[in-house]
Amino acid sequence: MARPLVECVPNFSEGRRQDVIEAIVSPLKNVPGVYLFDYRADADHNRLVISLVGHPEELQNALIASAKIAAQCIDMNVHKGAHPRIGAVDVIPFTPISGITMQQCIELTHGFGARYYKDTGIPVYFYEEAAMREERRKLEVVRKGQYEVLKEAVKNDPSRLPDVGENALHPTAGATVIGARKFLVAFNVNLGTTDVNVAKEIAKTVRASSGGLCHVKGIGLALEDRHMVQVSMNLVDYEKNSMYRVLEMIRMEARRWGVHVVETEVYGMVPAAAMLESSAYYMQTAGFDPDQVIELKLLKKMMEDA
Amino acid sequence: MARPLVECVPNFSEGRRQDVIEAIVSPLKNVPGVYLFDYRADADHNRLVISLVGHPEELQNALIASAKIAAQCIDMNVHKGAHPRIGAVDVIPFTPISGITMQQCIELTHGFGARYYKDTGIPVYFYEEAAMREERRKLEVVRKGQYEVLKEAVKNDPSRLPDVGENALHPTAGATVIGARKFLVAFNVNLGTTDVNVAKEIAKTVRASSGGLCHVKGIGLALEDRHMVQVSMNLVDYEKNSMYRVLEMIRMEARRWGVHVVETEVYGMVPAAAMLESSAYYMQTAGFDPDQVIELKLLKKMMEDA
Repeated sequence: MARPLVECVPNFSEGRRQDVIEAIVSPLKNVPGVYLFDYRADADHNRLVISLVGHPEELQNALIASAKIAAQCIDMNVHKGAHPRIGAVDVIPFTPISGITMQQCIELTHGFGARYYKDTGIPVYFYEEAAMREERRKLEVVRKGQYEVLKEAVKNDPSRLPDVGENALHPTAGATVIGARKFLVAFNVNLGTTDVNVAKEIAKTVRASSGGLCHVKGIGLALEDRHMVQVSMNLVDYEKNSMYRVLEMIRMEARRWGVHVVETEVYGMVPAAAMLESSAYYMQTAGFDPDQVIELKLLKKMMEDA
Repeated sequence: MARPLVECVPNFSEGRRQDVIEAIVSPLKNVPGVYLFDYRADADHNRLVISLVGHPEELQNALIASAKIAAQCIDMNVHKGAHPRIGAVDVIPFTPISGITMQQCIELTHGFGARYYKDTGIPVYFYEEAAMREERRKLEVVRKGQYEVLKEAVKNDPSRLPDVGENALHPTAGATVIGARKFLVAFNVNLGTTDVNVAKEIAKTVRASSGGLCHVKGIGLALEDRHMVQVSMNLVDYEKNSMYRVLEMIRMEARRWGVHVVETEVYGMVPAAAMLESSAYYMQTAGFDPDQVIELKLLKKMMEDA
């Protein structure tokens, strides 16, 4: 059996001091079982976003080590930045990649949150799939008013009490929002027209907020330099709303205006299963097993051996 | 830079004695840098087929160790089996998977052949892309008359001299055919008719031997139990003749008879690039990088670290 793999994209409230950024990242580098894909600091946001994939145990250990460094180096009482935040370690979302169900990932998240508070003294709010109060599924509800408001509210507003911890934030590191969520696929469809209304109308037909597919968020916008328009989307559940289904629905709607799909864009990372599901549709492959893909089988073998 | 990866599917002339089979496989198990995917022994063929993926250096070391065991345990003078063969280690084909070009794979094959003869005393014939004589590209030319004929012919027929070695086979292990070849994708398209002539006619339009696509081999056959017919193909260069192109060509030809594609089958392993190329066609993904696929990026990271 291959060991479970999860993705984690922790966000830290430091995007300016290079030495602090490197110190936070260092426990995540060259750790067996933890794979650092990328990290990007933004000075305006004063924020650091790290992309990791790893096995749960090793990943959790490395995250705790990083969080301890962040708590030492970042003082939320003096932190300023354009991005909303409530803590030095602002959010830690876990996403199941393979060998782990969402339910197991939620359990992992809750276990991690308890240990995180014990080891760092930073109180924890759970969000998205791991939320313990329904309204906390939404990150903006947890972060309402940001650090400055929450610091006071937590003392006497029961609705702002952390899920793990007492009625006080960490004196310098604030609080951390920890959650479990599905992998989000950023998928854009570019259309051969300069009429942005076509993209806006189509976005309405496919997105959940206007009554379309339940797990699609989307807007229509103009790509003026390219003389095209775009339906820009987030697929928040690529298993329920497959890429091919979204694409073919847009293609079908575009016919009303005699407009064609010029190209599509997958922005950022995508799980192999999302691509294979779409190729299975178009290629009509029956009984195809991801283990037939050499690289996926090899990855499984390497993880078994590791 | 990720280290090169090659696939290797060595064939040994032993499909009956379980202890010999396990002895041959043992140097290929639990070796860092060598990943044993599968091994299948066939008693009628009296043959063992092993699927491996690995880094060139580690893979070559392990193969030499296996070959030495095979040479000790198998005597070609008493070997019998339904499958054509000239040696205890009958064929060793290398296939580039990633981080290595075909030209580099050919050089690797030639270097390996020289070392193989030096270490085992078994003469070597190079075939397919690594052939040193044009006619030896074809395995059946090298294996003509099998072990029994070659054993005598090698002594005085210059056309049967090995590429590495003298004018005599190894006294018990015979000779080995070593080569480099592209990855072969086995791809079948099932059609909704019981008229096998439709599949036969379509096979003629797509396969190289009848003037179709240069890197497609194929036949039409009936799937009687399923009330369908099949165009059964080997894509011997999936980069030049992509899966989607072959499928759409078959779909287009089938229209002549009002016949539809019911499903397709990918038999055995397939490189990720072959699937992604086809999904890029259907999904019209512009600028898609395989590194965007989480599992492929993770595999690269793991190989960098290894």
